[in-house]
Amino acid sequence: MSEPQTDPLTTVLDGRWAEIRQAARAHVADFADVRAPGDLGIEAHRAQVLEQLQSLAKTDLPALGFDAQYGGKADVGGAVTAFGMLGFGDLSLMVKAGVQWGLFGGAVQLLGTARHHERYLRQIMSLDLLGCFAMTEHGHGSDVQHLRTTATYEDGSFVINTPDASAKKEYIGNAARDGEMAVVFAQLITGGESRGVHAFVVPIRVPGVTIEDCGRKAGLNGVDNGRLSFDHVRVPREALLNRFGDVAGDGTYSSPIESDNRRFFTMLGTLIRGRVSVAGSAGAATERALTLAVRYAEGRRQFFKPGGDEVVLLDYLAHQRKLLPALAKSYGLHFAQEDLVGKLNDLGSDAPEEEQRELEARAAGLKAVATWHATSTIQTAREACGGAGYLAENLLADLKADTDVFTTFEGDNTVLLQLVAKGLLTSYKEYFEELSPVAVARFVVEQFVDSVREKAPMLRGADADALLDCDWQRKMFEEREEHVIDSLARRLRKAGEAPFDTFNAAQDHVLRAGRAHVERLVLESFAARADDPLLSKVCDLYALSSIEADRAWFMEHGRLTPSGSKAVTAAVNKLCAELRPDARRLVDAFAVPEQFLAAPMLDELA
Amino acid sequence: MSEPQTDPLTTVLDGRWAEIRQAARAHVADFADVRAPGDLGIEAHRAQVLEQLQSLAKTDLPALGFDAQYGGKADVGGAVTAFGMLGFGDLSLMVKAGVQWGLFGGAVQLLGTARHHERYLRQIMSLDLLGCFAMTEHGHGSDVQHLRTTATYEDGSFVINTPDASAKKEYIGNAARDGEMAVVFAQLITGGESRGVHAFVVPIRVPGVTIEDCGRKAGLNGVDNGRLSFDHVRVPREALLNRFGDVAGDGTYSSPIESDNRRFFTMLGTLIRGRVSVAGSAGAATERALTLAVRYAEGRRQFFKPGGDEVVLLDYLAHQRKLLPALAKSYGLHFAQEDLVGKLNDLGSDAPEEEQRELEARAAGLKAVATWHATSTIQTAREACGGAGYLAENLLADLKADTDVFTTFEGDNTVLLQLVAKGLLTSYKEYFEELSPVAVARFVVEQFVDSVREKAPMLRGADADALLDCDWQRKMFEEREEHVIDSLARRLRKAGEAPFDTFNAAQDHVLRAGRAHVERLVLESFAARADDPLLSKVCDLYALSSIEADRAWFMEHGRLTPSGSKAVTAAVNKLCAELRPDARRLVDAFAVPEQFLAAPMLDELA
Repeated sequence: MSEPQTDPLTTVLDGRWAEIRQAARAHVADFADVRAPGDLGIEAHRAQVLEQLQSLAKTDLPALGFDAQYGGKADVGGAVTAFGMLGFGDLSLMVKAGVQWGLFGGAVQLLGTARHHERYLRQIMSLDLLGCFAMTEHGHGSDVQHLRTTATYEDGSFVINTPDASAKKEYIGNAARDGEMAVVFAQLITGGESRGVHAFVVPIRVPGVTIEDCGRKAGLNGVDNGRLSFDHVRVPREALLNRFGDVAGDGTYSSPIESDNRRFFTMLGTLIRGRVSVAGSAGAATERALTLAVRYAEGRRQFFKPGGDEVVLLDYLAHQRKLLPALAKSYGLHFAQEDLVGKLNDLGSDAPEEEQRELEARAAGLKAVATWHATSTIQTAREACGGAGYLAENLLADLKADTDVFTTFEGDNTVLLQLVAKGLLTSYKEYFEELSPVAVARFVVEQFVDSVREKAPMLRGADADALLDCDWQRKMFEEREEHVIDSLARRLRKAGEAPFDTFNAAQDHVLRAGRAHVERLVLESFAARADDPLLSKVCDLYALSSIEADRAWFMEHGRLTPSGSKAVTAAVNKLCAELRPDARRLVDAFAVPEQFLAAPMLDELA
Repeated sequence: MSEPQTDPLTTVLDGRWAEIRQAARAHVADFADVRAPGDLGIEAHRAQVLEQLQSLAKTDLPALGFDAQYGGKADVGGAVTAFGMLGFGDLSLMVKAGVQWGLFGGAVQLLGTARHHERYLRQIMSLDLLGCFAMTEHGHGSDVQHLRTTATYEDGSFVINTPDASAKKEYIGNAARDGEMAVVFAQLITGGESRGVHAFVVPIRVPGVTIEDCGRKAGLNGVDNGRLSFDHVRVPREALLNRFGDVAGDGTYSSPIESDNRRFFTMLGTLIRGRVSVAGSAGAATERALTLAVRYAEGRRQFFKPGGDEVVLLDYLAHQRKLLPALAKSYGLHFAQEDLVGKLNDLGSDAPEEEQRELEARAAGLKAVATWHATSTIQTAREACGGAGYLAENLLADLKADTDVFTTFEGDNTVLLQLVAKGLLTSYKEYFEELSPVAVARFVVEQFVDSVREKAPMLRGADADALLDCDWQRKMFEEREEHVIDSLARRLRKAGEAPFDTFNAAQDHVLRAGRAHVERLVLESFAARADDPLLSKVCDLYALSSIEADRAWFMEHGRLTPSGSKAVTAAVNKLCAELRPDARRLVDAFAVPEQFLAAPMLDELA
């Protein structure tokens, strides 16, 4: 058999790390058992995932993210891309690999120093040491800064302790079955003083550590999640991952970053690879679900035309509406992810703080938008395949169950979008602080005038061509973001007396700001690749279906007239019809390995 | 222990069949094993569900839906209400009970005649005969009229045959393990002529019938779904359920309904109880999920107020926004369901055809809206409980997986909404047929003028009181429905040459018409019970959050100004804050049996 030619679309999608993607595709093709893994039962599934992890350990994948001096390849972008590609297959494997090499290994590398690297990194890459990332606590999931496990320095060692049940480490991957060690996040106390959250390397199969199994979950049952509690477990002083804070033998604390707060956020910030990988694999899982659903919709027929043949599902407008805008958005998110990975790769670990914060906000926002998109799109794909989509053999059931937690792990999406908005407001904060009261008053008035002066609606009628103008689309996204952030800054300015109440009353506004920002970034990434006539049309569909979804806002803020708004809907319908013949090509271009698409429901349609 | 007093809200919710509801609550309280049933594994789960079904067989439940002369209670409303209540517990039991008594038993009763009733009904009630409802085929799920199994009359018997794989009966509950018989829907052929779809009682554990197990599904794994194929299986002439069509010994076909098409829809129409029960149990499952999520949100805290305590989740606007509008809609759907059940009960089986069609449309529409609401609300409830919501022990995981198929079984929702719209258009069709061409032209012009003459926007500014006016809310729902149907009728009038293309281009419009109709019915049912100040506020939240969700449409059609639209959003936020203190009471009033709320995540919050 001759090698099929690669679709140029695949080349665009595969982007900068195309070789990594090809290698990942080739590797998974070797996995013997690719049936719906939920059929195995929990223990057998866990065993299979560990086996597949060992098989991965023999490839280049683990080395990609680590420093060359310990046998790594120092290709951060490649590492994150490869993790994302695991999202095409059993997501339990993706998560297990992410825990071992991304979170556990990543913490040792990025929060530790030479002594930790020397001792652990090779073992971590080779799987001679399996480990956990023990950050989340039962009572504090999102609010990591207030976790309550303590690490108290006394007599030359740290005493790790769980004060009560709410401080148990919760949902910890690799804990219930396979992990030998954990990077444990705890409040560091020395000389009676708390220095905030730090990370420690702690053995977990030792007296004093209690491990519970989290049991069955909605999905991801190939990952052995557990709960960890520590009863005054002693570890040597060197167990502290001491890049950002150290304790001398006499208990003296030192850190290159003075502010506890800044140190905390710097530490967390170094760990964004996990979040980026989740967005990547959510994207891959979504692409797989869309491939299954579009192939089904291309072959499956239901109901006869008056006096004619049975209609192919994808010829129905309602079916196109379910799948094609979601497909367009998946393209946009794919490219935005590629740009994010590029930035992460190029920025390096000692970038200026401002750029680092910008990168973190982008990662947080894209993770939130991409994982919500995954949840809703995979749900829609299931429904679009009817009863067949509900059978495990047709793969969508596990895909849905496995990705469901993505919206709340590695940062709850609602919390993450607020983080994005906070970053966007930072520039305002600095602006206010530098200005005199008079200048502030003028700023506020200007903003107010700007909002009262009704802008000329951008689109009055059914001028379909105007809608397809890239510049107009970009301007719509930009003006929305600008307006939402401006008006939010104004609202929050009044927060003086009751900061929580003011913030809380504006919380939906805050979330909107985060979302508007991310959508603009996605459109930029997409537009930069939309030279090709087909991609340009898909980009139009992304832009216009996003505007359509938020057309109420555009009307409320004088950016669309009612008839302009209706024209957007008509244009989306028209684009769906125009793209319908290319739907199959568009999903096949994701190049999901065929063994992950082996659903019996597709067999008889072929 | 003294009996706790019943909240008056529960009395309103329990409605006309309050006694049935109380009995159902009392019965399930006796089930020994109420842990997450997915933990059992498929075979043990199936066995447990059969045991629970046998326990149910000893109660009044099976008798409710059947005629008194065979030991039934002839309380159709009570039967459907009781099935709905099963939605609080393991949904596999609800589906298995629904298959046995609702679909299999219901088909025998409603499509059969005395000879079938005499022979089967008592056995069906007592579970001495377990059966299946074999309608859906692999290649034809929604398009029942074109299913391809044949029942050919020859030599005094019917030969049931599956011509090819696409005509296999698919997803048939009770088939893989427990069922002995099936009501099989097939094209009746006699004297070489096809008479359309009829139903036959066919044994399935006999030579010539092949049964395959559908295997694991996303959820509902306590139900033994299977595939059936028939290789020229002979059954006696009396196996035909012959209420609506019969074959004499010599092969002569006769029917009280001449038109094949009308006969088909009449037969299907008698089977709406299943659809009504699905909507009811979807509602119960949603109420259970909301109870879990609101209780969690009432106790769980995350992040500190500046200089204050940790904030309770439900105090966040974003969290209120996730749960409270969904709670309000659940109330509305609960009351609309109660009204539907009342109509179903009172109408009886020989109601005028027009009323019967109206009932069917209402059942179809409410099933679609209620099950989509279940899917999205249970998803949101899971996310609102974060990682805890993903663990099977906290019950939301199975709830999500089990209800997921509700949107596509017992009629695919997208198909059902089109059925609703079709019904709404019937009056137009008759109008056109009776009129002369000139009158039709005038009708169209009048409609057109009506749409061009911009109506005075109903709400121009931020007049919050006007929004809380029930009449205004009702008018908004009514005018939307009227306008959507009028304009749809106008579009479809042009369908002369290319009926499919015209219809297909308007398919999103068709779906909108169905949805607008159902939402108006829900508001009516809710408003009729909103005397109480608390219920009145919840009704306001339902009305305004529905308007908000569709505010783009209201602006596009001159029913809301941009500032009126913003005022709707502000009013929804305000109502959320006002209802927040009552949230716990509102969910507790559903009176979900406590053993179905025994989630460990709630223990430590108590």
